[in-house]
Amino acid sequence: MIYDVVIIGGASAGLTAAIYAARKKLNALILARQIGGQSLLAERIDNFPGIESISGKDLIDNMRRQVEKYGVPAREDTEVESIKKKGEIFLIKLRKRENIEAKTIIIATGKSYRNLDIPGVKEFKNKGVSFCTTCDAPFFEGKNVVVIGGGNSALNAALDLVKYANKIYVLARGPKIKGDELLQEKAKQSGKVEFLVNAELKEIEGSAFVEKIIYKDKEEGKEKELEVAGVFINIGWMPATGFLRGLLNLNDAGEIIINPRTNETSVPGIFAAGDVTDIKYKQCVIAAGEGAKAALSAANYLVASN
Amino acid sequence: MIYDVVIIGGASAGLTAAIYAARKKLNALILARQIGGQSLLAERIDNFPGIESISGKDLIDNMRRQVEKYGVPAREDTEVESIKKKGEIFLIKLRKRENIEAKTIIIATGKSYRNLDIPGVKEFKNKGVSFCTTCDAPFFEGKNVVVIGGGNSALNAALDLVKYANKIYVLARGPKIKGDELLQEKAKQSGKVEFLVNAELKEIEGSAFVEKIIYKDKEEGKEKELEVAGVFINIGWMPATGFLRGLLNLNDAGEIIINPRTNETSVPGIFAAGDVTDIKYKQCVIAAGEGAKAALSAANYLVASN
Repeated sequence: MIYDVVIIGGASAGLTAAIYAARKKLNALILARQIGGQSLLAERIDNFPGIESISGKDLIDNMRRQVEKYGVPAREDTEVESIKKKGEIFLIKLRKRENIEAKTIIIATGKSYRNLDIPGVKEFKNKGVSFCTTCDAPFFEGKNVVVIGGGNSALNAALDLVKYANKIYVLARGPKIKGDELLQEKAKQSGKVEFLVNAELKEIEGSAFVEKIIYKDKEEGKEKELEVAGVFINIGWMPATGFLRGLLNLNDAGEIIINPRTNETSVPGIFAAGDVTDIKYKQCVIAAGEGAKAALSAANYLVASN
Repeated sequence: MIYDVVIIGGASAGLTAAIYAARKKLNALILARQIGGQSLLAERIDNFPGIESISGKDLIDNMRRQVEKYGVPAREDTEVESIKKKGEIFLIKLRKRENIEAKTIIIATGKSYRNLDIPGVKEFKNKGVSFCTTCDAPFFEGKNVVVIGGGNSALNAALDLVKYANKIYVLARGPKIKGDELLQEKAKQSGKVEFLVNAELKEIEGSAFVEKIIYKDKEEGKEKELEVAGVFINIGWMPATGFLRGLLNLNDAGEIIINPRTNETSVPGIFAAGDVTDIKYKQCVIAAGEGAKAALSAANYLVASN
């Protein structure tokens, strides 16, 4: 059986693509390591329009139920090994030595935040440890927080937090802050941000929630503490594009380069949507919209090529 | 008072922009003729991810409640007369001789479908008369329907309907179908589509729902009937950009040309989102994602320019 479209990835972009594909009566299949992806980590999402407040898990469950209603099968625990073009058809090779054939593909595998393998990160995730200020800054009104990282993403996180937090430390492992001068300037002007360089995070401690961090001051060669309620880790993220190996054009960050109007990739018939692409903002509702676009483009492609 | 951002338009793009602006602690204001726009017309929306099935009105009410929770004021019944740049500030002139000042603007005024002023169109809206096959085709499984229009949008509508309807008439007023040959070919191949040219819709009739249409066969000079359950009007749409008068670059269809990555328009500080822009697909969840993008870009612009 040759699918009209195989959607690789099962978070908001992939599930929305499945809803739109099904409504265009495309014969679709979802392949995912796990339905939900990054969204499952969100304890509370307050910025998904139309739903006042919901956990990431419940939001994904809602979408999943919609997909099931349309009869789109989803195979979890599957990992794609590689994709090859064979005439007009794509051959999707799974880790489990199975091949799946598709006329079009939508890649929506998302990204994962680059993590720190340090005591406390895992335990306090959603209990003070966060990877996204756009998502979580409002929970830290009047609190002291620390941002881990020294690049633009860390500086932007600090500036997001200036509006809510009482005091923001920016902890950079290297000898200086690498982000734009302008952003550094803004952070200083706020009077709330303090930069700590040559500072390496060692541990996050607390009871129910984060209470402090321990870091190593590499200049003085000794460990120090900071009392904070929040730890925002901003050391970059990794788009899940490893399995593509030269098939599609990627940017320097490893993200799939798309035509932002149509979600086409550099290979005709392969579309991409959501956080795995080079779109500028990584947010759940944006990824959902991108999934819809990719499915509508896949449907158009099938009309034109059949 | 000078607002950080004034959002013109109060449907899914504008309301989502307001949620995101508020979370970035921007001082925001919504100006709208009516909160909701096109979405209010939708009796049932089944393709908004995360919400299995909802009326357009309820979806908008949900978003509106979120916006209120964040304390963003919304002024309804307001119409923007013009926008002028005055130094670093935008001056928004309202019809009611009032001026509002803003550092940035997000235009999310949407579009309206070009309507037909014919008996039955208004009465049977959502009772067989529709302007959107992507939204409504699934409701016409096994039915006979007619598409009004002879361009690409009418042909795409017919092809959407092929998957659901039993028989699709395409009714064009002119002497021939103007849409792409390829699309015409696909429609013919389906065996379900019949083209009627020189045919002018005169009336839509029915009781609770649409039952038939009356059209004038201009060649034969007489009126004829078609028994149909659905009438899809696809004669184009009008983006609500009249008040911009040369301020921003528009495309030939009158849509605002945006940078699709950042939602910037041709004027720095003015952003646009949703159906009023030159994005390819006009769908509620896509517009919502675009609204989020525009607000995040406005926030970045304010950081860089303050």
